[in-house]
Amino acid sequence: MTRIVVLGGSFGGLTAALELRRLLGKEAEVTVISDDDKFTYLPSLPWLIMGWRRPDDITLGVDEILKPEGISFIREAARGVDPDKSKVTTASTEISYDYLVISTGPYLSFDEIPGLGPEKGHTDCTFTLDHAIKTGQTWKHILENPGPVVIGSAQMVSCFGPSYELAFEMHAELKRRKLRHKVPLIYLTSEPYLGHMGVAGMGNSKRFFEDEFADKEIKTIVNQAIEEVTPEEIRLKDGSKIPFKLAMIAPPFKGVPAVAPLGNPRGFIPVDKNYRHTKYRNIFTIGVAMAIAPPEPTPVPVGVPKTGFMTVKMAKTASAAIFSDIKGSAPPPQSELEVICLMDMGNSAALMKASPVLPPRQQSYTKKGIWAKWLKVSFEKYFLWKMKHGISNLP
Amino acid sequence: MTRIVVLGGSFGGLTAALELRRLLGKEAEVTVISDDDKFTYLPSLPWLIMGWRRPDDITLGVDEILKPEGISFIREAARGVDPDKSKVTTASTEISYDYLVISTGPYLSFDEIPGLGPEKGHTDCTFTLDHAIKTGQTWKHILENPGPVVIGSAQMVSCFGPSYELAFEMHAELKRRKLRHKVPLIYLTSEPYLGHMGVAGMGNSKRFFEDEFADKEIKTIVNQAIEEVTPEEIRLKDGSKIPFKLAMIAPPFKGVPAVAPLGNPRGFIPVDKNYRHTKYRNIFTIGVAMAIAPPEPTPVPVGVPKTGFMTVKMAKTASAAIFSDIKGSAPPPQSELEVICLMDMGNSAALMKASPVLPPRQQSYTKKGIWAKWLKVSFEKYFLWKMKHGISNLP
Amino acid sequence: MTRIVVLGGSFGGLTAALELRRLLGKEAEVTVISDDDKFTYLPSLPWLIMGWRRPDDITLGVDEILKPEGISFIREAARGVDPDKSKVTTASTEISYDYLVISTGPYLSFDEIPGLGPEKGHTDCTFTLDHAIKTGQTWKHILENPGPVVIGSAQMVSCFGPSYELAFEMHAELKRRKLRHKVPLIYLTSEPYLGHMGVAGMGNSKRFFEDEFADKEIKTIVNQAIEEVTPEEIRLKDGSKIPFKLAMIAPPFKGVPAVAPLGNPRGFIPVDKNYRHTKYRNIFTIGVAMAIAPPEPTPVPVGVPKTGFMTVKMAKTASAAIFSDIKGSAPPPQSELEVICLMDMGNSAALMKASPVLPPRQQSYTKKGIWAKWLKVSFEKYFLWKMKHGISNLP
Repeated sequence: MTRIVVLGGSFGGLTAALELRRLLGKEAEVTVISDDDKFTYLPSLPWLIMGWRRPDDITLGVDEILKPEGISFIREAARGVDPDKSKVTTASTEISYDYLVISTGPYLSFDEIPGLGPEKGHTDCTFTLDHAIKTGQTWKHILENPGPVVIGSAQMVSCFGPSYELAFEMHAELKRRKLRHKVPLIYLTSEPYLGHMGVAGMGNSKRFFEDEFADKEIKTIVNQAIEEVTPEEIRLKDGSKIPFKLAMIAPPFKGVPAVAPLGNPRGFIPVDKNYRHTKYRNIFTIGVAMAIAPPEPTPVPVGVPKTGFMTVKMAKTASAAIFSDIKGSAPPPQSELEVICLMDMGNSAALMKASPVLPPRQQSYTKKGIWAKWLKVSFEKYFLWKMKHGISNLP
Repeated sequence: MTRIVVLGGSFGGLTAALELRRLLGKEAEVTVISDDDKFTYLPSLPWLIMGWRRPDDITLGVDEILKPEGISFIREAARGVDPDKSKVTTASTEISYDYLVISTGPYLSFDEIPGLGPEKGHTDCTFTLDHAIKTGQTWKHILENPGPVVIGSAQMVSCFGPSYELAFEMHAELKRRKLRHKVPLIYLTSEPYLGHMGVAGMGNSKRFFEDEFADKEIKTIVNQAIEEVTPEEIRLKDGSKIPFKLAMIAPPFKGVPAVAPLGNPRGFIPVDKNYRHTKYRNIFTIGVAMAIAPPEPTPVPVGVPKTGFMTVKMAKTASAAIFSDIKGSAPPPQSELEVICLMDMGNSAALMKASPVLPPRQQSYTKKGIWAKWLKVSFEKYFLWKMKHGISNLP
Repeated sequence: MTRIVVLGGSFGGLTAALELRRLLGKEAEVTVISDDDKFTYLPSLPWLIMGWRRPDDITLGVDEILKPEGISFIREAARGVDPDKSKVTTASTEISYDYLVISTGPYLSFDEIPGLGPEKGHTDCTFTLDHAIKTGQTWKHILENPGPVVIGSAQMVSCFGPSYELAFEMHAELKRRKLRHKVPLIYLTSEPYLGHMGVAGMGNSKRFFEDEFADKEIKTIVNQAIEEVTPEEIRLKDGSKIPFKLAMIAPPFKGVPAVAPLGNPRGFIPVDKNYRHTKYRNIFTIGVAMAIAPPEPTPVPVGVPKTGFMTVKMAKTASAAIFSDIKGSAPPPQSELEVICLMDMGNSAALMKASPVLPPRQQSYTKKGIWAKWLKVSFEKYFLWKMKHGISNLP
């Protein structure tokens, strides 16, 4: 019986575990290791911050998903991986694997910038359920006691979408509450220009966001790295200071410590086009944990985003490659990675597509419309339904 | 009987006088002092320059407005105000007041720039009836003997709308006359970017004007201060020279000398939110005479515009505050000042709204359409009708 | 019998010869000298490169056009002009003229930049039938073996339209073939900004091309001069290097050597508004051979384009002036030169109009639509039909 260990219980880990179980049935023993017993539909965290979703609306128990499929779940953090001995260590045990799938997401590296982060620092964040709940509370204070809000991304971030969404959503909510004129909204970013998004833009995304932000009077500060954050202001490396009452700042991303030694200096793991480790052939890495070189050097370093959509696709590709490996057949041909993103804009939404992810591209566009909002809301329900029923072979 | 003196016979002065009479009836003696016996509907002066209005179309006798309402009119320039003794001096007399309303508009400070202005200099101007009549003559010469036209604003200007309008109107008129290719049109401004308008822009106004001017091939020179003007060219502080045959240049604004000692170094008078002088509690100041701090420092200093629309609103707020003061009640709560502006664009027009005037704002937009032109033309008739009949309690 | 010699057998030369024959009938002996026995409808060369036209579709024999009209054709290159003796020299003969019409087009000055050009260098070109055929072959290689494509214009170019067209067409063709993501498309130009086109832009052409290129992810490098070209890369004067697999680079333009001594240092010939040489009154010059001063100095020097449409108009104006000169009457009044250009955009097209050619202008616009594509295709057929039948008195 092939022993497959999956690190991570979010989009990538769960999809890989379900897909491997589906493909291999009883031939494989699939074990998921994660320190979080909840699956959170992360794309809805901005809505949770805004008060438009409660935690229960967008979470599922991991066990509830895996148990009916006969997948083991160990609720512990992985401590490390020994790639030569093919073993994963946790606080209490050691697990051997024939194949390892790493889908551990990012390590939110708040420590790199003094004063950053919701725990030891002065800024909020939208990347985990707990952070989002806390940010939602700060947002409530802003509604009662308005003041400047800074939304943005520090250097080395590789996920810009939620920040754009929050800027649009806060604008919309403040307008509805007739408070917009009491809250200066500032979008601060390490991107070299608005709409870069870590992928050198998508078609006319620069002008799209410039126009939308100008129209909504969301002030923009691009191409900046953060030096430090005090309780009252963000200090940029260029010396300027931005006062805030709420600062939702995405921190630098790194690989999580348990798997970082398998990767590059920032801990992202190099893979081939089947997401197989370039050196350790029985290790696969998908999602944010995996390394993609940026499309172009930028004055302030930024990373390439890997959306939930992309991660799910990677999970299927990696699972198919493991299946082929076990069966001794060639892995199925893979199409190039593309990104389809539904970006909420408060009262509207936009569908962004880039295929492949990085330029030059066969296709890339941004289309705005209320239909994109309906799609986004529907997809949330659909994905949670799919997960709840352990379905991995639907788009 | 309360003695109320109003300095100024334009939008603010007349509205304040009529409104105070309406509120206080025979309890107050209201006196208007102005050296001009005509009320000019200033927003139509660009049309007068273009030959689309005659002076009679857009002027009313001040006496004709005030007499039926029992308001006294002294046709003299104020020489000075003694705030401690509550007295206004003119060339021939001295008038004591219980309340003073200052609505003296701007002092057009041509002297600050050598060669500027229609009297001692070489440039034209659109801010008074006489200036506009003279500019209209220069414009006729241009139509007969075409050459480069520069329209714009010097440093310390706080009224940009008419310059934008003239640029659009001249373009439209030249096209109609098939002369556009003989007249280079240059828009020269102290604004840091097109569409700033002294209020840090309104929504996407930067792109709006950039697109409109590019489309109409109106050349743009932004962020400039003028050093001096010779009969043939405008010399900028950065050393460049702009030749012209007609130069319609708005001069630096200051407070008028008679009231300037009550104000800041440039003579603009500091007020609270009821337009009450921050020191002399029986003096109120409305319109351009009043001080508003700019929304952001700009490389070349510019001021915040106060439109006729805003000035009328200020007149009503100040009148209500005086009424409350006399009655010993609290002044009615005031909404924040907003601006609604109908900007003529020659063959079309645009409605611009900023609420409040300065960012951050609850609302701000620019909408272009022929309906805005109809609105603008209708409002001119409506306002003149309202003034002629001494009506101050309609919007 | 008046002897009229026409140098050049393209748009200008043929139109002038036909028009002079039509006006003067048997009073004149008209001789065309050209080293090319084919007339090529040059605006369709980008389509030939793309494989959308064959050479036969867009060429006519010069003899086939001229013989039925009784116009002589000498198929030889002109060696020189002696303006004092009114003689043209070719390799084999010497021809005296009473009037000379020069319509020799540009000399493609590849030699000014090491490594430039399809003969001695490493770049392709679209300005002659032979060059376009060769570029078409390189393009086929790109489709089989994709790699970066650079399209653009060196310093001193005065014809930008075909480069814009090729960028759009290649994008469209690559999309159709699902190869777009394998071919980085770069538009490299000496224009100071996108859409300048040597005429300081036309209306909002800057934003039009910026938006279109951003939308299509055609990377843009503006305001550049080329230092040299190696087999693998273009080296710019600013030190940057652009790798390519296909580089379609328009070379600097000069006057052709045989007539250059009659012109300015770059060999373009100065004329009055009837296209008459400013010194030699029996010499007329039309089309690219003629000198037009640029509308404004640019950081990298560029020239004013003369389209086929403009050249045909110049040919008629010059012919009318020669006719008047012979008849001893005043030349008919001439309207200012305007440009109407149908620019192919692959799946669509745009109509661009500038009237007059250089700013300030009475009219200028860019309108995009499929109707412009139909117009462009129809006009090709119409013009070739007109030429084939020796018709010069239709628009």
